[in-house]
Amino acid sequence: MWGLDRESKKPLYQQIADHIERRISFGEFPPGSLLPSERKLAEQIGVNRSTVVQAFAELRSLGIIESRSGSGTRVSQFKWGASPKHTPNWNRYAQGGSFLPNLPFLRRIREALSQDPSLVDFASGELAADLAPTSEISEIMSSHQYASYLGYDNPQGYIPLRQALVRYLAEYRGLQATESSILITSGSQQSLFLITQCLLSPGDAVAIEDPSYYYSLPMFQSAGLRIFRLPVDQDGMRLEEIRGLYKKHRIKMIFTNPNFQNPTGTLLADERRHQLLQTASELGLPIIEDDPYSLTDYEGLPRMPLKSIDTSGSVIYIGSFSKIAASGLRIGWMVAPNSVVLRLADARQQMDFGLSVIPQQVAAQFLESDFFEPHLSRLRTNLMYKRDLLIEALRKELPGEIQFHIPKGGHHLWCKLSEPVNDAKLLEAAIRNGVVFVPGSVYGSDAGFVRFTFARAKSECIGQGIAGFARALHSLRN
Amino acid sequence: MWGLDRESKKPLYQQIADHIERRISFGEFPPGSLLPSERKLAEQIGVNRSTVVQAFAELRSLGIIESRSGSGTRVSQFKWGASPKHTPNWNRYAQGGSFLPNLPFLRRIREALSQDPSLVDFASGELAADLAPTSEISEIMSSHQYASYLGYDNPQGYIPLRQALVRYLAEYRGLQATESSILITSGSQQSLFLITQCLLSPGDAVAIEDPSYYYSLPMFQSAGLRIFRLPVDQDGMRLEEIRGLYKKHRIKMIFTNPNFQNPTGTLLADERRHQLLQTASELGLPIIEDDPYSLTDYEGLPRMPLKSIDTSGSVIYIGSFSKIAASGLRIGWMVAPNSVVLRLADARQQMDFGLSVIPQQVAAQFLESDFFEPHLSRLRTNLMYKRDLLIEALRKELPGEIQFHIPKGGHHLWCKLSEPVNDAKLLEAAIRNGVVFVPGSVYGSDAGFVRFTFARAKSECIGQGIAGFARALHSLRN
Repeated sequence: MWGLDRESKKPLYQQIADHIERRISFGEFPPGSLLPSERKLAEQIGVNRSTVVQAFAELRSLGIIESRSGSGTRVSQFKWGASPKHTPNWNRYAQGGSFLPNLPFLRRIREALSQDPSLVDFASGELAADLAPTSEISEIMSSHQYASYLGYDNPQGYIPLRQALVRYLAEYRGLQATESSILITSGSQQSLFLITQCLLSPGDAVAIEDPSYYYSLPMFQSAGLRIFRLPVDQDGMRLEEIRGLYKKHRIKMIFTNPNFQNPTGTLLADERRHQLLQTASELGLPIIEDDPYSLTDYEGLPRMPLKSIDTSGSVIYIGSFSKIAASGLRIGWMVAPNSVVLRLADARQQMDFGLSVIPQQVAAQFLESDFFEPHLSRLRTNLMYKRDLLIEALRKELPGEIQFHIPKGGHHLWCKLSEPVNDAKLLEAAIRNGVVFVPGSVYGSDAGFVRFTFARAKSECIGQGIAGFARALHSLRN
Repeated sequence: MWGLDRESKKPLYQQIADHIERRISFGEFPPGSLLPSERKLAEQIGVNRSTVVQAFAELRSLGIIESRSGSGTRVSQFKWGASPKHTPNWNRYAQGGSFLPNLPFLRRIREALSQDPSLVDFASGELAADLAPTSEISEIMSSHQYASYLGYDNPQGYIPLRQALVRYLAEYRGLQATESSILITSGSQQSLFLITQCLLSPGDAVAIEDPSYYYSLPMFQSAGLRIFRLPVDQDGMRLEEIRGLYKKHRIKMIFTNPNFQNPTGTLLADERRHQLLQTASELGLPIIEDDPYSLTDYEGLPRMPLKSIDTSGSVIYIGSFSKIAASGLRIGWMVAPNSVVLRLADARQQMDFGLSVIPQQVAAQFLESDFFEPHLSRLRTNLMYKRDLLIEALRKELPGEIQFHIPKGGHHLWCKLSEPVNDAKLLEAAIRNGVVFVPGSVYGSDAGFVRFTFARAKSECIGQGIAGFARALHSLRN
């Protein structure tokens, strides 16, 4: 670890200049690349900005870096030795490749959060530390014997976890799964990635909900898929257009999140469930059901998945611990026909050689422990409490300026601004006012929609966060 | 968990028939798909084969399954209800997708090992249980506090692990890396996957070693890359053709494993290292250096990576714990220019949302513990011991029939048979004789080469395994 040596005779600015030069010659910042700003480096290193200004001046005098006003400081294209040498044009490589980067808004939010962790976070779709079963998992880890054999895992995932999931799926999700029909994945994200990469081909058409979490995932475009959208109303996804899409575009799959949909929080109405399965079965059309939120129903109602009433084997079911326990375990699962499970397990071997056994052991033990049920009940109560805090704050700070339906489960409140504003300007203004959210356009909606996630922020910060959001919104209207 | 109820009044065959029918109606075995054989099911369930035969007869009489002699038993295409219903053609979906399956030999080896775990395993590239630091890792896990906060990890990987790696790379690998230049990945496999998916585009040309582990990875073809090969001799990769390939095919990257190369075990000669870096630097050509084996040098010599003498920033360096500690941790790392690390971290978020924090915490603590150095020293001694057992067995069982160079580190012995035989026949004969190995053609070589991995098999089984291999080989010659 490099750090300043404040006892050294070498001045601080010189130590910093030497450090930056080492990072440049090591290839971390190749010729032509942009260095972090003086302000940012000063923060990282923990010195006054003037010290970094001095270090930059030193490097400039050596011809190592070049600054141009307005476009920052770059590493010079100078030669390091006597013979002609060329560093690969890494920036061009980094901009290439067929795999698309995340959406700019999502990258901007991540950057803002990493620069200023004190922002009130209504953007990240995960549980706050006080909602996660941290102490329970710690206790499980310290009281059990682990690491019996740490070889490569079974390609479908750790067998005792799959066995625990068979019991969990029967008890909590109404599914009679078997060990061999389950694939353990790195959250539901990896299930979706494997499906888009391995069961579909470039040019294939698929249907997703509108608005929808799927819309925010460039993986669909990266896989070369054509995306068609089915509108969501208060009763979930509308089904009228499915037959037309099938006839006209030969859609190959429907992706849906029927319980407490992300971002709208809606539940797919019962009659639509039956109708969707009927249509899928008549067309021989697969449904990918993503089910991360069902167990968060605030009244503890058993919200069953589509898969539990799927009598014709049309549904691949995806579940995860990320939204009900801990996203940091990175444990999700897929229940699918045998040929699909084997195909995806084989492909996953090539991508990452499977998951670590350790978090799978932890997840299996947590699921079978006496901690699980009380944790779920506490989680539901706390999520409802946070939802109510958020709604109270919105009513106080933005009366008449924002509309929403109150969700009965899940992590998200989907809001419509009574007067639309520019998404990008609103996000920047919010960051300046100490808060982040996700603009609705990320999920495919028109301007003027906002997704507030209340699971991640601390309860005591929710009011202050919404006050900041209200200031941001009003600053754009004046 | 389903299991037979031996106290039930319902006959065993009927319980089995009901269970299979549930799995079929649940979609695990869709219409038209092949069921496991009667023999295999009988083994799985723990009954006589005749009981499964009876259960199958029951299902056949109901029209649920159909058997044809020679082609096994399949689920019927019959209708489940009154209205026309169609299960999606899952098998066709599973055969589709642009991502290619693993090579048939590798799938066959995996299948054989899962059917019969008593096979002597000269195929799997991982450490045997007695070479892994299992008790050390257990002790670390039970004596530390974990799971402080189990949210999504930093996209580049757990910061304390990156800090520990900075110290490790300086001390063991001669690299002055920084936290921000490191990306933690799920083994080196994920590093390679990210590079082929995100830094290269379909149609790009790359060079790999011949023979080479990379050749066994369909990920290069899945990414649409054109592959050119540079022959490996006793001194590692030959370099003569690089300029020609660059001129003619515009190769965009060179993938190399300079220390104890997989599969040949060779070390890239010193003068070739300098020449390779010189050429790469003149052409502005990136090198991907995979370095899983260096620390296994049996004499404990410090085998430094190319990256340690790379003064023009041409090399992306990839390391891993899989071959020196435990593949089941799934911890690898990449040292790369900042723009590359940020690009790949962003893409990885979309694929799996990053690694679990828990194995990263364990890896960081193991690396910084007093266990690490003694473990390495024990590992080297034991690997050399297993190599010697293997060589002794080969000399005893196959005198004059097999040639090899004795490797000074790594997990593999690369052998040439004095008379080539058909790879597929040899592998099947070996399986029948209780042993698996990897045919050389998997790595791109001609028929008649064999890779024996000695790290995975138990010491006491090596002699018996080679005796089985010798019987297999001789059975093909008679």
